[in-house]
Amino acid sequence: MNKITIDSERMIKRIFALGEVGKDGEGRRTRLAASDEDKAGRDLVASWMKEAGLRIAVDRIGNQFGIWETEENRGRAPVMTGSHIDSVINAGRYDGCYGVIASIEAVDALKKAGFKPARPIAVCAFTDEEGVRYSPDMLGSVVYAGGYPLEKALAAVGVDGTVLGEELERIGYAGCEEPGFMVPSAFIELHIEQGPILEAEGYELGAVEDLQGISWQEIVIEGKQNHAGTTPTNMRIDAGLAAAKVNVFLRELCDASGGKTVATVGCMEFRPNAVNVIPDRAVFTVDLRNPDEKTLQAAEKALEDRLNELERTDKVRISARRLSRFEPVLFDEGIVSLIEASAKERGLKCRRITSGAGQDAQMMARLCPSAMIFVPSHNGISHNPEEFTENKDLIAGASVLLDVVKTLSGR
Amino acid sequence: MNKITIDSERMIKRIFALGEVGKDGEGRRTRLAASDEDKAGRDLVASWMKEAGLRIAVDRIGNQFGIWETEENRGRAPVMTGSHIDSVINAGRYDGCYGVIASIEAVDALKKAGFKPARPIAVCAFTDEEGVRYSPDMLGSVVYAGGYPLEKALAAVGVDGTVLGEELERIGYAGCEEPGFMVPSAFIELHIEQGPILEAEGYELGAVEDLQGISWQEIVIEGKQNHAGTTPTNMRIDAGLAAAKVNVFLRELCDASGGKTVATVGCMEFRPNAVNVIPDRAVFTVDLRNPDEKTLQAAEKALEDRLNELERTDKVRISARRLSRFEPVLFDEGIVSLIEASAKERGLKCRRITSGAGQDAQMMARLCPSAMIFVPSHNGISHNPEEFTENKDLIAGASVLLDVVKTLSGR
Repeated sequence: MNKITIDSERMIKRIFALGEVGKDGEGRRTRLAASDEDKAGRDLVASWMKEAGLRIAVDRIGNQFGIWETEENRGRAPVMTGSHIDSVINAGRYDGCYGVIASIEAVDALKKAGFKPARPIAVCAFTDEEGVRYSPDMLGSVVYAGGYPLEKALAAVGVDGTVLGEELERIGYAGCEEPGFMVPSAFIELHIEQGPILEAEGYELGAVEDLQGISWQEIVIEGKQNHAGTTPTNMRIDAGLAAAKVNVFLRELCDASGGKTVATVGCMEFRPNAVNVIPDRAVFTVDLRNPDEKTLQAAEKALEDRLNELERTDKVRISARRLSRFEPVLFDEGIVSLIEASAKERGLKCRRITSGAGQDAQMMARLCPSAMIFVPSHNGISHNPEEFTENKDLIAGASVLLDVVKTLSGR
Repeated sequence: MNKITIDSERMIKRIFALGEVGKDGEGRRTRLAASDEDKAGRDLVASWMKEAGLRIAVDRIGNQFGIWETEENRGRAPVMTGSHIDSVINAGRYDGCYGVIASIEAVDALKKAGFKPARPIAVCAFTDEEGVRYSPDMLGSVVYAGGYPLEKALAAVGVDGTVLGEELERIGYAGCEEPGFMVPSAFIELHIEQGPILEAEGYELGAVEDLQGISWQEIVIEGKQNHAGTTPTNMRIDAGLAAAKVNVFLRELCDASGGKTVATVGCMEFRPNAVNVIPDRAVFTVDLRNPDEKTLQAAEKALEDRLNELERTDKVRISARRLSRFEPVLFDEGIVSLIEASAKERGLKCRRITSGAGQDAQMMARLCPSAMIFVPSHNGISHNPEEFTENKDLIAGASVLLDVVKTLSGR
């Protein structure tokens, strides 16, 4: 049987077209959720959905859907596929957008090939996945999946002082559907890896089998402010040094985990932050991730033990505050196997992989069997204008998406 | 022979009176060099100098002198004693001011006791010792000692955009004497320790025999910005982690030095400073001190070696920029012995000590035999309203100062 093929040329053109939407005053691609730039991007996506003959629906949190429903499958639980089109500041063109555009192309190709789906197919673009303007991130999908109250999400105050609900009204994307109005039979998201593994190991595709659990903490270490010249070493209580010891410890913890645990100290602040003053306060963040919940808990415990030890040995006082915590997500084995099978048939080198980043699919996994397809990110770069995936890889990912959506909606 | 005694009650009163001058809008004691607050402090000090019958002289960089000269000793090289009255922001009342006020009291007591000095005695208050408003610190004394060009100092632009020379004119303390117009036969400075050693070890007095060399560097570590979730540990180039390793290394270096070397990482900045981004840049300062120049150089070399090693092991790029460098100062053995002898006669527990901080006396040591007397600082606190020295210790220090000035000016 001949495989159905997508209009790959149009898909690439559309990725570049959407990538031109929302350049800010400094020429940076920035489409923050529910902004004018986001509206322009949404309108473009809606026009492509309509061009593919999809029915547009928008829910109250602004999630945007293009639905292909036939007389025969009306009322059955749909297959849903998509991602998001909001962006970070100074973003690349692929993150999120690729998944939404490829989904439209896949459905269009299925329609044109005369495929008769046993279930509706819904293409979605979720609101505020990046979380740059409104917290928390993945807001549209978590609300859709019932994991976060709609009213609280609508009342979210942005970094610019705006209110999400008002901004959605303003740009005309405060829809009337209740989030969760379609409960899908399956969800699949196509996305760039945003990491270096596939490229470094020579794979064209990743079948994403799980998603790391994420533990974010803010740690405050308090020492004693003193003169850098007059205070003997044995009388120092140096908060900055204790923070450095935590950073070094975390790397040792990761090295000992055999590569499974990753840890990052991303934010760091010393007080008073003067050349000749021993810092009395260091505030920093710890981002800890592991795809296994028990191992992640063990890593959190090891960090806690180290902090307690430092209180004794370095005489500092330490407090830790949880900023964010997501349990790891195990994606649906059936869908992951479908991805692998499609890749094999199409002669694509595919490996199973863990998502290191948070994704809308992790929220949808609460509602229905879900999984993801990754394509390589050149040099692992993302959230950056240099974000790049080769066209052949973009086409390969979209083709496998088409196969999987076809199989899932054919059931 | 009965020892001459100072008017200790008046000295304490004057310390508290000067401590009331220059409270800023938030009630913080702040007398930055050549400010209105500094002028008010200078005027008060001038009034006390006049009350003691001293002749006021001001040099072109604003250093303020009260000179006791007699018919008999005119033309001989004077003994100089003093410190500074400018302050940091939110300062204590003792740092600097104590030395100036005790010097006036010592001279007054000598005069009243009918002492006939063989040399003039000059009490001095140097301009901008703290260096908070104008760089470098110890500006008045280094200009006086010929270590920094007068015109460059007068052109110094402050953190508030003002020019030092213009501000000195404005407050009426741009004098007409050339800096260095008196070349002293000896200089002695009485100061609070600003560190915890004397109190912790139960001493009432420190005979300061040397002053640590100071090496300030700014170090920039460059790594690679990457996603905290999607980047495996073995592909990370984490600038923040490398900075942490340097901080930990410096403490090990100090521990291995047997307490002689002290090191401080006081400033620290990560870029982009985001929870889920591996920092691609860490900028921090290193303050390294040791009283021996060769050992200080060896510590600088050990740091350089460690940075080179990190470039290899952690794949980061590192550059270091010198911010400030002062060689250690060895004070005059003869004056240090005089301090010890006076302490012994007065039954005061005295130890030799190293000044960890920079001092006007280190600049004056370029011109003439110099030394310092330290009194204990409670808990080692300084540059802080909680700065505190017990009255009995203040009196002890001033009494020893009087003895030493008497001996030096009697020769």
